[in-house]
Parts: sequence; structure tokens; C-alpha cells
Amino acid sequence: MPRRVHVSVTDSQGDFIVNTRKDYVIGIVGATGAVGQELVRLLHERNFPMSALRLFASARSAGKVVERFGKKWTIEEAKPGAFAGVDLAFFAAGGSVTRALAADAVKSSCVVIDKSSALRMEPNIPLVIPEINPEKLRNHGGIIANPNCSTAVMLMGLWPLHQAFGLKRIIVSTYQSVSGTGAEAVKELADQIQQHVSGQPVTHKVYPYQIAFNCIPHIDSFGENGYTGEETKMAEESRKIMGLPNLKVSATTVRVPVVRAHSVSVSAEFERPVDLAKARAAIAAFPGAELVDDVANKKYPTPLDFAEKVKCGVGRLRIDTAWDNGLSFWVSGDNLWKGAALNAVQNAELMIREGILKSEPAAV
Amino acid sequence: MPRRVHVSVTDSQGDFIVNTRKDYVIGIVGATGAVGQELVRLLHERNFPMSALRLFASARSAGKVVERFGKKWTIEEAKPGAFAGVDLAFFAAGGSVTRALAADAVKSSCVVIDKSSALRMEPNIPLVIPEINPEKLRNHGGIIANPNCSTAVMLMGLWPLHQAFGLKRIIVSTYQSVSGTGAEAVKELADQIQQHVSGQPVTHKVYPYQIAFNCIPHIDSFGENGYTGEETKMAEESRKIMGLPNLKVSATTVRVPVVRAHSVSVSAEFERPVDLAKARAAIAAFPGAELVDDVANKKYPTPLDFAEKVKCGVGRLRIDTAWDNGLSFWVSGDNLWKGAALNAVQNAELMIREGILKSEPAAV
Repeated sequence: MPRRVHVSVTDSQGDFIVNTRKDYVIGIVGATGAVGQELVRLLHERNFPMSALRLFASARSAGKVVERFGKKWTIEEAKPGAFAGVDLAFFAAGGSVTRALAADAVKSSCVVIDKSSALRMEPNIPLVIPEINPEKLRNHGGIIANPNCSTAVMLMGLWPLHQAFGLKRIIVSTYQSVSGTGAEAVKELADQIQQHVSGQPVTHKVYPYQIAFNCIPHIDSFGENGYTGEETKMAEESRKIMGLPNLKVSATTVRVPVVRAHSVSVSAEFERPVDLAKARAAIAAFPGAELVDDVANKKYPTPLDFAEKVKCGVGRLRIDTAWDNGLSFWVSGDNLWKGAALNAVQNAELMIREGILKSEPAAV
Repeated sequence: MPRRVHVSVTDSQGDFIVNTRKDYVIGIVGATGAVGQELVRLLHERNFPMSALRLFASARSAGKVVERFGKKWTIEEAKPGAFAGVDLAFFAAGGSVTRALAADAVKSSCVVIDKSSALRMEPNIPLVIPEINPEKLRNHGGIIANPNCSTAVMLMGLWPLHQAFGLKRIIVSTYQSVSGTGAEAVKELADQIQQHVSGQPVTHKVYPYQIAFNCIPHIDSFGENGYTGEETKMAEESRKIMGLPNLKVSATTVRVPVVRAHSVSVSAEFERPVDLAKARAAIAAFPGAELVDDVANKKYPTPLDFAEKVKCGVGRLRIDTAWDNGLSFWVSGDNLWKGAALNAVQNAELMIREGILKSEPAAV
């Protein structure tokens, strides 16, 4: 696709600081899934600079017509060669699709912003939350990974506190919504509620047990050490994103009957003494967080309040009674937004702003 | 009420080990509440040795007739003087009723087994879980306190592990059901589900926010240190029951849309190295716990599975990755049973078995 003239302003390092190009051709792989649908929405609501949007999915969905925002798309099949002419593709179709197609997309000069877990821990693939480690975008080789949903939400509280006091150890428990599993899990919860209300037997298929009126301490598959994949991701990805290879982490990840937005209960030990006022100020000043911490007036974040919010809510800050330099807090954030689609779009927006949206390694 | 002849067998220390008396007059204060109703049920289902059961409640409920188990009761008003002739009264009507009436009951030679939090931390009042510190029953002065619901459930996993490895520090997060708040909260969740399904606006009164499809990190009122009363109870009561005054505890207590049974995610640090096989054996051998820990076959406890169960389910045991001598686990248990009515009945059963059901201090 030919590119039109655009205006760019660069700073003294040659980085683009203003970029008026609006003609990017954007693709979404897994466009019919829970995250894919949020990507379509966010790209429109945030006026993402695109001249065209192409929606890709499996052969099964190809040919279907999708109508949203007064537009109409025919779903294309995600397959080798499909990304010619696409400048940037958001991959939101799971690890196997990423493994099968991301390298092929890069060969077509398409930058891949991947939501799957497939490549996150690859040493040469940047795993980026733009509020935390945006500098890693500059060294990309065509693929940028996005973090696990619980990890991203948790780090919106943890990173500013690390900057203030120096993180040493965290013990966390999650309260994860069913939309993190996907659209079929949202339907399963709704079906179970309907069955319950109408006195029918409650059936399940997506989860190993009923999720309505229940908690399931099992997300992703179990590893040999007894931790689940989700729990291991929270540890490994936190270390990689924050650049803290020695951070001690223990996570327990739990599915709860919430539709949207994950919450995390965090107890953190720090290198330096913790000051509560300074902690609150650090959270309040951090672009990814909204401080909701006025317990005298019953103000703290809940998942219902932080569904479909750009920022994650952080509250219940208190000096931890189990550690010398400890602080506990609670964070709620939208798993489909900051935990998935929004973070991916924010990464893309930053790359465009910095002029590094190109699928060759950046010459920094 | 005159007492009939009964047969007792005592051991060499003079303790009763068999006691065939069946003629105890039992009272339940708060008989119409969530815990009170479970007390009526458990006393019947466990064939508690009683010749009469009297149900007490506030003046508002007095005179109402209750029918259960083929029997009929007229609710009596709980007021000073009402406990003459009652051998043992279970108090399940909240702290203010306990403060107003427990001492009066003891004056009438009525032993009080109290579910409220009012007297739990009084140095001279035993706070007892019979599987953990039954010896404290022997020094009672007429009133026996029962622990907080989350604490009782958690200790069913923690105590056997402490005995095996020596507890040092715990970081816990809870997933607490609405029945812990009371019958009106169970109704509130049911109403909200009904409103949601029928497309009506969702209203709330019991909780400060909607609980259906939500999590509320706020149970009991907030203290000056930012912890809630529930969180402080978990710390203080754990120390008192296990006899570990220096145990370090940090708790985050959270209400979730589950009807019955609380769950707790526990990360524990121990004095001695932890061995997983030994930990599992300790749990399996503990009378208060059922080991449900076979993740390869997706076996772990859930609240739905442990509602109306005598034992609490303990699973997801794993060597903790954040501590040198650490172990994490998950426990689910019935907050109305082990967390309330059952523990109270078990205390009473043990006192009868040991012949110490009398409202004067035991001469041990």
C-alpha cells in the first residue's frame, strides 16, 4: 500500500516526537474473541491513526461479516502471507497462532504486538508496559510482547512503590474475572446464573467446576512445583518488566464469579523503610494508577468500578504488619483493557509517537 | 430444672471420659439468625445430649413460633433472668447481646459458648478450637469464646503445619461468603442476581457496594492502621489460639459473591525446612482437615464443595517460592459450621465428654 506524505518532528536524538501519519494499515488477529473485540473498540474510541483496519481470525470465522462503529468488515483468514501490506498487527488469538504466524507477519514488514504468552519470556522479545519500561520498545525486532493480565494490573500499583522504596519480595493472591478466560467463559457464568435462578441443574464446560457462587484456585495448567502457569507468569513477567531478576514472588491465582476486571491483594517487602504518605503520593502520580484510598469514607477499588477504565484502581494502602519494611495494597483493573487490549494499543501509540513503528530492528 | 440420675465414668485424673447424661437444657440466643439456625440443625443432626432446647431472640422476635425437625418452639426474649434453668447457652446474636447478657447467664449457672467477637481477646476467657487448644476449656469461668470464621477455617490448615515445621509468619488473603454477614446478606446477593437477570437496576443495602459479580475488600470496620477489624481478628485470634504471641500476620479480607464457605489463600514462613510429603501427611492426619490436593487430576478445595461439611478442605500445597522455609496452600471451609455453629457445638460436646460443663471455674 503506497504511503502518503506526512509531517514528522524529531528531537536532537533523531527520535520522532510528533508524527502525523494517519495512514497505518492495522490488523487484528483473533478479532472475534474477547480481547479482539476490545481492540476494535479501543482503536476507534482512541482515534488510533489508521487508514484501514483488517480483521483476521481462524478459517472457521473467515468470510463472516462484522458490523461495528458504522463500519463493516469481512473477516479474513489468518494464514501465512495474509499480512502483506499490514503495518501493524495485534495478535490476540492465543499462543499457537502467534507461534504459527508472527514471524511470517514480520517477514512482510508487519510489526506484531502480541497479547499471547508464547514469546513473552524470550530474551530478545521486549515485554512492555509503556508506563514502566517503554525504552524496551526501541530495541524491538518486529515483535513486542504484552504481559499477562493479572501481572499488568498488579504492576500498576507495584511499580511506583518499587521506585519509591525498592522491591524485595511480594506475596499476592488474585481475584480474576471470567472474561480473562474468554467470551465462552462469560457465557458460562451467565448460563449458570440463569440455571440457578430458574432452578435448573447448573452445568459447566469451560471450567472444571461451577464458577457461579464459587472460587476456583486454578488458572492455567499446573507446573511441577505446584504453582500454576498463571502464578509462574506473575513471577517471571514481573521480574522481566521491572528489571528485577532477583525479586522473590509467590502468587496464588483464583477465578471468582466476576465478569470483568481482575483484582490483586498484594503484600510487598521493600529494601527501604516505607512511608504511607509517600506511597500514596507515588501511586497518585503514576499515570497507570488511580488512587482510591479513603477507607474512612469506604473508598477503595472494586472490580465493578474498574471495568472499562483506562487506569487501574489502587487502594487499601497500609503499613504491613508482617514485615519490617512492608506495605499491603489492593488493586482492581480491567483485564481486557490494561490487562490486554489497552496495553497493546498504548504500546502501538507510543511506537508511532516515537517513530519506531517498523518491523526491522531499531537502530538505536 | 431437677436433674435426673446419670452414669459417668472417670479416668485416673478424675476426668469424665464417658458421660451418659442426656438431660442438659440447652439455649440458643439469636436463634433466628444464620448461625442460630445452624445451631438448631447441628444439635439435632449430631444427637446432642439435651432434654430440652430453648430458643431466645430479641423482644422483636419473641413469641414467634418456629417449627423444625418435627418440633415447635416459641421464641423467648433474651433478657436478664431468662437463663435460669438453662445448663448451656450458645450465644449467636452479636457482641452487644453477649456484653449485655452473658455474665447474667453465668450467674444463673448457665455455661455460655459465645460466637461473638466481644470477649474473644479477654485474657481470662478461653478462645477454643477443640482440635487445637482443648486444654483451655478446663480453665473456663463460665464463658467460652469461639473464633472468627475466617480464622477458624484458616487454622484447620495452619495448625498441623505449625506442629510440623514451626510457624513464623503468614500472609493471607480471604475469599469470604455473604452468609458470614448474615441471612440478610444472603438475601441481598440473591436479590441482586434476580435484579441482574431481569434487567432491573441492582440495589444494595447490607454492603456498601454491589456484591453480585464483584469483590469488596472490606469486612468489619477500618482500624487506625488501615487494617479492618476482620483482618486484625485473624492476626490476634490466631496468636491466642495457637499460643504464638510473636507470630507475624498480615491479612487482607475480601467479600466475594459466594453464598456459603470461606476460602483463604495462605503463604506461611516456618522456622524449620518444609517437606511437602510431611506437610501433606500432617494435614491428612489432622481431624479438622480433609486433604484435597491432587492437582494433576484438578483436585483442590472449592467453597461450593465445602459448604455444609464438617471438615475444612486443604489443598494446593506447594513449597513457597518467596521464602526459604515457606509453604503456600488454599483452604475452604463452612463459615457457618467450623467458622461458627459447629465449632461451638464441638466445644460443648467436648466439655460434656470431659465433665466440665458447669459454670464455675473448673478445679483442675
